[in-house]
Amino acid sequence: MLQGKVLVAQGGGPTAVINQSLVGAVLGCRRFAGVQNVYGARHGVRGIVDEDLVDLSQETEPNLELVGNSPCSALGSTRDKPDQKYCEAIFDVLKAHEIGTFFYIGGNDSSDTCRIVAEFADNAGYPLRAIHIPKTIDNDLVLNDHTPGFGSAARFVASAFGSVNADNRALPGVYVAVVMGRHAGFLTAASAAARRYDDDGPHLIYVPEREFSVDSFVSDVKEVYDRLGRCIVAVSEGIHDSTGQPIMTLLAKNVEKDAHGNVQLSGSGALADLLTDTIKDKSGISRVRGDTFGYLQRSLLGCVSDTDAHEAREVGEKAAHFAAWAGRSGSITIRRIGDYAVEYVLDKLEDIAAKTKVMADEFITSNNNDVTPAFIDYVKPLIGSDMPEVWRLRDYPVAKRLNK
Amino acid sequence: MLQGKVLVAQGGGPTAVINQSLVGAVLGCRRFAGVQNVYGARHGVRGIVDEDLVDLSQETEPNLELVGNSPCSALGSTRDKPDQKYCEAIFDVLKAHEIGTFFYIGGNDSSDTCRIVAEFADNAGYPLRAIHIPKTIDNDLVLNDHTPGFGSAARFVASAFGSVNADNRALPGVYVAVVMGRHAGFLTAASAAARRYDDDGPHLIYVPEREFSVDSFVSDVKEVYDRLGRCIVAVSEGIHDSTGQPIMTLLAKNVEKDAHGNVQLSGSGALADLLTDTIKDKSGISRVRGDTFGYLQRSLLGCVSDTDAHEAREVGEKAAHFAAWAGRSGSITIRRIGDYAVEYVLDKLEDIAAKTKVMADEFITSNNNDVTPAFIDYVKPLIGSDMPEVWRLRDYPVAKRLNK
Repeated sequence: MLQGKVLVAQGGGPTAVINQSLVGAVLGCRRFAGVQNVYGARHGVRGIVDEDLVDLSQETEPNLELVGNSPCSALGSTRDKPDQKYCEAIFDVLKAHEIGTFFYIGGNDSSDTCRIVAEFADNAGYPLRAIHIPKTIDNDLVLNDHTPGFGSAARFVASAFGSVNADNRALPGVYVAVVMGRHAGFLTAASAAARRYDDDGPHLIYVPEREFSVDSFVSDVKEVYDRLGRCIVAVSEGIHDSTGQPIMTLLAKNVEKDAHGNVQLSGSGALADLLTDTIKDKSGISRVRGDTFGYLQRSLLGCVSDTDAHEAREVGEKAAHFAAWAGRSGSITIRRIGDYAVEYVLDKLEDIAAKTKVMADEFITSNNNDVTPAFIDYVKPLIGSDMPEVWRLRDYPVAKRLNK
Repeated sequence: MLQGKVLVAQGGGPTAVINQSLVGAVLGCRRFAGVQNVYGARHGVRGIVDEDLVDLSQETEPNLELVGNSPCSALGSTRDKPDQKYCEAIFDVLKAHEIGTFFYIGGNDSSDTCRIVAEFADNAGYPLRAIHIPKTIDNDLVLNDHTPGFGSAARFVASAFGSVNADNRALPGVYVAVVMGRHAGFLTAASAAARRYDDDGPHLIYVPEREFSVDSFVSDVKEVYDRLGRCIVAVSEGIHDSTGQPIMTLLAKNVEKDAHGNVQLSGSGALADLLTDTIKDKSGISRVRGDTFGYLQRSLLGCVSDTDAHEAREVGEKAAHFAAWAGRSGSITIRRIGDYAVEYVLDKLEDIAAKTKVMADEFITSNNNDVTPAFIDYVKPLIGSDMPEVWRLRDYPVAKRLNK
């Protein structure tokens, strides 16, 4: 049974569709006659401990629909990672406001918060259902086929490389883009999803699931450039060497040794700049360009996968269903059925919390610098329908007359 | 009359809609019974002097339509800026292939190339019509209300700041994004187009039409941050101080003086990193983030203004019309009518070539860090219809019970 007061909050990095989950949860709860109020906490768990709560029961459905279609956490978010004491403070507020159901939309850390808060409630004999609603562009939650937010971010990355490939064909050279993902390479791998012609980029893809060697990188780039006259590279921000040292740190040291001066590591564009400088220095190729996709990749306005939006809405609604009928706390996970549908399962919080999923071996080629057809099959349904396309002119050469 | 052979080429940076102009020109020419062939030069003027030509007459209409909707120069482009000798080589190839009409899709440099090639033809008594088809995301061609390519790039920048504003409300701090534009600030100014609520960002906009003072910048940011608890800044890559020195060079020197070491200037992310470091150093604000929008802003797949695509197609078709009926060389310019329509005029090449338009004074606020409502009125029709929107939850606070 779902009744009394419900509290919902959003944690971690915003996504293009996280508000779909919020709206799915709010409207899902409203369908239950016994629900008195649906509260929202501003800025995640920080808003709970500060009692910075708003009453979402008073929101109109038309406005909720507009908010659902808007990117980034409408309630606000937080980077706080609650420890035991912080979770106890959360529980104190839930108790004081007679909250019987708590939904937290977020990634690993959010599921762990749900787990600890649920333990406090259990120990106090307080009837609380804490339900974790999955969200992360990193796609790194275990037991989930994929996570809401990933599909839209993957669509951005695929769209970006689709364009960059055309741009780089028009003005050939080497192009390197750094994509989000410290431990899991799914988002970087999505760069391959817009390939059509045999020589379409990205030609090289480096993910944090594999060791990165600067020497292999430079020779890979040279090989592609010598063959095609151009080369497009997708790199995860989390690439590291065999000892686990981030490549950014390693390259910055090299640059210092080469008497190029100290390079600040704090700037967000540093890794792309260091990689392009390395190619210039070591390969002799002159036109080398780099981009760091930055904040846009997690939620560019208008870059939304319809599949992702639809599922994000559903996991929110399912939270209300599980709260009503499962009779326990848990984390909602997404399972893939056939090609392509999904179903939702309520798993145990402790089976999700503080665990990280990375790319399966079958998704990465044996030479560690590309993705397999199995990954393309995996990611295509997630980036949604009506993906814009890049087509080429056919080749009808005109005979030369001057031959100078 | 339009007859014989036509040659079309694309120059400079690719855009989201440059292939619409190509397809408009090709299909426009095909309607004239006397046209024997429409050739394309691969990689702009470079392909002409190398006789690297393709016969676009053999392209099917369905494939041309697919190419028209694809971003980036389908014929390939070049950064070559032809001098007199280079233009003479161009003319030699046009003559050898009996080209009577030459269309060059591009910016300032391309119009100047048309001008010089047309002079060679005149001096040789060779009947050539050289028509410049405008294209540039910088929007800096004189006599034009705006240029094809700008609207879609402006839509990208507006969309980006719409999202970043929502992201920054969820996780407050200072955010700085560097936008393309060395001399003209139009694209950076377009960052204001997605504002809705009074406190929506960008809160500060710096364009190269005004001198940039690092001290004023830091105090502007502090003022906004103290007032709103967050601050979003749009900066043109071309910002410079009162002596014309680029701010990137200036800040890199400061960093060196402060014993932070030498900072490489070549990396594309350098200016954003330097500006965010400067804010951290001088304001004491801790969460400061920066992005450099990079190559995506000129043609992200799927980020297209329908107005822009439509007009880019039309200027291509008008090139065929002017070649047929104007009886002279020239540059096509776009004039605005009412609110909102456009008409196309064939201006003299020498009135466009090698000139640069910058933002009108009425588009920049008197304190030099924002745009005026007149600019918003100017840019809104250009970014196209169905612009995605960002909406907020309303504020229905819940009374505190613990008040800790």
